[in-house]
Amino acid sequence: MGVGYSSCNSLSLSLPTNTTLFLHKSKPTSRFNPTTTKIFQTHLQKPPKTMSQSSLPSSSSSLVTLKCGKVEEMETQESVTRPMCDVHGIAEELVKKMEYDALVWSSLHGLVVGDRTVQRSGTVPGVGMVHAPFALVPMSFPESHWRQACELAPIFNELVDRVSLDSKFLQDSLSRTKKVDAFTSRLLDIHSKMLDINKKEEIRLGLLRSDYMLDEQTKLLLQIEVNTISSSFPGLSCLVSELHRSLLTHYSEHLGLDSNRIPVNAAVSRFAEALSNAWTEYNNPRAVVMFVVQTEERNMYDQYWLSAVLKERHNVSTIRKTLAEIDVDGELLPDGTLLIGGQAVAVVYFRAGYAPNDYPSESEWRARLLMEQSSAIKCPSISYHLAGTKKIQQELAKPNVLESRFLEDKEDIAKLRKCFAGLWSLDESDIVRDAIQRPELYVMKPQREGGGNNIYGDDVRETLLRLQKGGSEEDAAYILMQRIFPAISPTFLMRDGICHKDHAISELGIYGAYLRNKEKVIMNDQCGYLMRTKISSSNEGGVAAGFAVLDSIYLT
Amino acid sequence: MGVGYSSCNSLSLSLPTNTTLFLHKSKPTSRFNPTTTKIFQTHLQKPPKTMSQSSLPSSSSSLVTLKCGKVEEMETQESVTRPMCDVHGIAEELVKKMEYDALVWSSLHGLVVGDRTVQRSGTVPGVGMVHAPFALVPMSFPESHWRQACELAPIFNELVDRVSLDSKFLQDSLSRTKKVDAFTSRLLDIHSKMLDINKKEEIRLGLLRSDYMLDEQTKLLLQIEVNTISSSFPGLSCLVSELHRSLLTHYSEHLGLDSNRIPVNAAVSRFAEALSNAWTEYNNPRAVVMFVVQTEERNMYDQYWLSAVLKERHNVSTIRKTLAEIDVDGELLPDGTLLIGGQAVAVVYFRAGYAPNDYPSESEWRARLLMEQSSAIKCPSISYHLAGTKKIQQELAKPNVLESRFLEDKEDIAKLRKCFAGLWSLDESDIVRDAIQRPELYVMKPQREGGGNNIYGDDVRETLLRLQKGGSEEDAAYILMQRIFPAISPTFLMRDGICHKDHAISELGIYGAYLRNKEKVIMNDQCGYLMRTKISSSNEGGVAAGFAVLDSIYLT
Repeated sequence: MGVGYSSCNSLSLSLPTNTTLFLHKSKPTSRFNPTTTKIFQTHLQKPPKTMSQSSLPSSSSSLVTLKCGKVEEMETQESVTRPMCDVHGIAEELVKKMEYDALVWSSLHGLVVGDRTVQRSGTVPGVGMVHAPFALVPMSFPESHWRQACELAPIFNELVDRVSLDSKFLQDSLSRTKKVDAFTSRLLDIHSKMLDINKKEEIRLGLLRSDYMLDEQTKLLLQIEVNTISSSFPGLSCLVSELHRSLLTHYSEHLGLDSNRIPVNAAVSRFAEALSNAWTEYNNPRAVVMFVVQTEERNMYDQYWLSAVLKERHNVSTIRKTLAEIDVDGELLPDGTLLIGGQAVAVVYFRAGYAPNDYPSESEWRARLLMEQSSAIKCPSISYHLAGTKKIQQELAKPNVLESRFLEDKEDIAKLRKCFAGLWSLDESDIVRDAIQRPELYVMKPQREGGGNNIYGDDVRETLLRLQKGGSEEDAAYILMQRIFPAISPTFLMRDGICHKDHAISELGIYGAYLRNKEKVIMNDQCGYLMRTKISSSNEGGVAAGFAVLDSIYLT
Repeated sequence: MGVGYSSCNSLSLSLPTNTTLFLHKSKPTSRFNPTTTKIFQTHLQKPPKTMSQSSLPSSSSSLVTLKCGKVEEMETQESVTRPMCDVHGIAEELVKKMEYDALVWSSLHGLVVGDRTVQRSGTVPGVGMVHAPFALVPMSFPESHWRQACELAPIFNELVDRVSLDSKFLQDSLSRTKKVDAFTSRLLDIHSKMLDINKKEEIRLGLLRSDYMLDEQTKLLLQIEVNTISSSFPGLSCLVSELHRSLLTHYSEHLGLDSNRIPVNAAVSRFAEALSNAWTEYNNPRAVVMFVVQTEERNMYDQYWLSAVLKERHNVSTIRKTLAEIDVDGELLPDGTLLIGGQAVAVVYFRAGYAPNDYPSESEWRARLLMEQSSAIKCPSISYHLAGTKKIQQELAKPNVLESRFLEDKEDIAKLRKCFAGLWSLDESDIVRDAIQRPELYVMKPQREGGGNNIYGDDVRETLLRLQKGGSEEDAAYILMQRIFPAISPTFLMRDGICHKDHAISELGIYGAYLRNKEKVIMNDQCGYLMRTKISSSNEGGVAAGFAVLDSIYLT
């Protein structure tokens, strides 16, 4: 599981780019045989250089100079998958029309984000809008893998809930991380305080998103992470599916594609339903749902879609507050009721608070603690938040952990295991040794920061060597993950009104909603999906560069 | 009728601000009695100074420094009408919430325009969007006057059609204007050429908007003009009605207003229906509707709404071309078919071509002529365009013109007369004499330019004196119109994300669609409405200053 506090709520749309060729994950020694390594090498354009992923722009709004047009011919033709049609073969004139129609559609239907170049666009709605970055056509995706991902959603929902209840597992697993990562440490402190006062969350709401990549060589759907906090884009992802359906319908004669092959995306309505159900469970008709938001937010329209549906369909009102505002305006009644400016809060929905930057002062931490102490339903609670950290993801991947502590159903366990990528802590010395030798097969993920700060290539070797010399506990701040090599597909990426014809890799996120009270599970569903597509430049050894856009899928 | 080529398509939202106290319009001498003049003077804050309306910013996007807050207390309390509730009495906190919700609603529902401060916002959809300027609450409007305005729509539709068929009336009425106004002259030339080749428009489509102000003292609904070309805002006006209905519903507890008092606004769907019906009449399933557009257009989303509905509901495709592009790509088949880039055009819908600026070279005039010669249905034809000029409006207001040439039904004639403001040509010497004496009671409207270039106050006197001395034919370039004094109402105007609490005047536009073929009338309907509200500053003697916003109405 868990990217933890990666920028899952931000507009960066960054894809963690683990790329791998591991065919099995049971033991590191068996994972590397000459055959697979050879296949792997055909994927790499060039050996990775010293460029680290952290030096790449991670925000879609930052102005990246793009080399448009096709990347150089891949060394191995077979690594480019066949999309549902030859997308780059679509006549230029037709593409132009589709671009235009898509831009118009976005503007009229609220598929928009704040434009970073316009002042106030991150604070005032209706000002400085630009269409959200999107792919012009959906990305082809095998139906079997799509079904697999959907089936996994309720299992991961349940797993996160169970992990969240296992306080000892959370505290023990993160005990070393705590020493080297101040942010996780603060979260654990709040968690400990809740244990001390014996605080129980009887109504628990999870709005999750589990992200996957499809490994091209092994044809395995491999999990990147589960987001347990601020799972973003439930609003805009639905719109992109609708946009693509509209384009495929209008251009059906020319494209010969069936718009029904784009799965219905109900993320925003199901998430709103989950929030509404949670609000009903709280059972105070005068209470509101509070969105915890950042002070500047260019992805605000995604959030507004959720509150709009919540209001229109369920007549549940939303307030939006920053952590700093909650610290000032918040109070706790003796019965645990959370009041913000005198207004009772039924559900706290976090679209901020997942990253260290969200806590510039003690004020924000006070606000987080205040909310956690309250009887409001937290989405997520501190336990759910911790259950989504990388370290927990890695611990859950260890042999026998799922079986011994969390799940009974063997089929469920097998399904989860099948999607687990190779995950190791840095105290597994044979893995570390191998990663120093063949760093291109690994990704180093710091607990401390998000996907954009992962370490790839020669930087893996250098970092590992430095850590070995240091003798500090800093190694606890990282996990190692196998690199995944997703298919590279031709596509068109639209950003700032400009179309970029390029090759790209994609990541599929599956939204899940989980709600239960003391007696029973109320919701445990797959809710929709988010496809993100990112330019894959040929000169960075498989590490995706450039910007990511919202996409949908075409089942093949 | 007819503003002619005023900037009815532009984003300026400019309101012609004729203000008057005329109680009768039959004879100038009887119009001015000491009583009415006295009443009139209570309307004026101060006698108008030398500031002419033409020096005021006419575009909503130009950055006008605004004095927010209330204007000084009116000299006469009774000139401020009672709105449906005390709008300025709404608690500040509630207004803030409504502002926020309204901005969000606009962004999600495509109530947007191009932001002038962002490059490409006038050429690339989806780039540089900002919410359209709008009033936060609907403007109260008497139901009886609303019904009156709606009833007038089919009569004006029919009148415009009949006037368009009376070539002699058009040519004779505009013969003096032709000498002093190059633009009207070019339009008349095309008209003459069509007469020469005996070109008949058997299928005629009018998408009109008749604009009215409600004179506060006389309680008369008085017509400002009929737009026969580029009647703008059918798309956005519907959205503002929906926005207001949504706000009134959500805040019904606090506002105590009934959202059902906002009339349903079907402008965009009815206009799309009319275009689709015309397309059907043309009877070529492969032909398209062509929107003739300006090279830069910040009101493009209003137009996109129309083409989106046309496509979604009627499966009729739209192309967008500038006059210059039509000159390059257009050709006429021997049978009269208009081809643009090889594509047959069924309906030409003008959202450009109404102002001299739209014809920077001979290329644009060639394009206009080409289209006029074709068998495509023109919305409007050159005759419809001419029927909407100010001079024709003034000629139609002359005694006996309606009766002798255009209409039979006496009730219809009486209804039209009732809404005619006083209109005179400058050869009516007693009127000119009076206007020099009491210029504050008149507006001088140049044929040559739009509402923003009307002449008010002392400038009327000066211009009339100058024309009298000159002895040229320049007087034919103007008409005189009585000034209308609409009610001044408290409101909140939203622009660029900022709310301006102020007093404002409003103008109601009623959309009408007229379609007929050789045999019969296919459509002759009232289609919806556009309310525009504009800050009325106290220091300009009743001439509205500042910016205008889109509004809707609340029937009282």
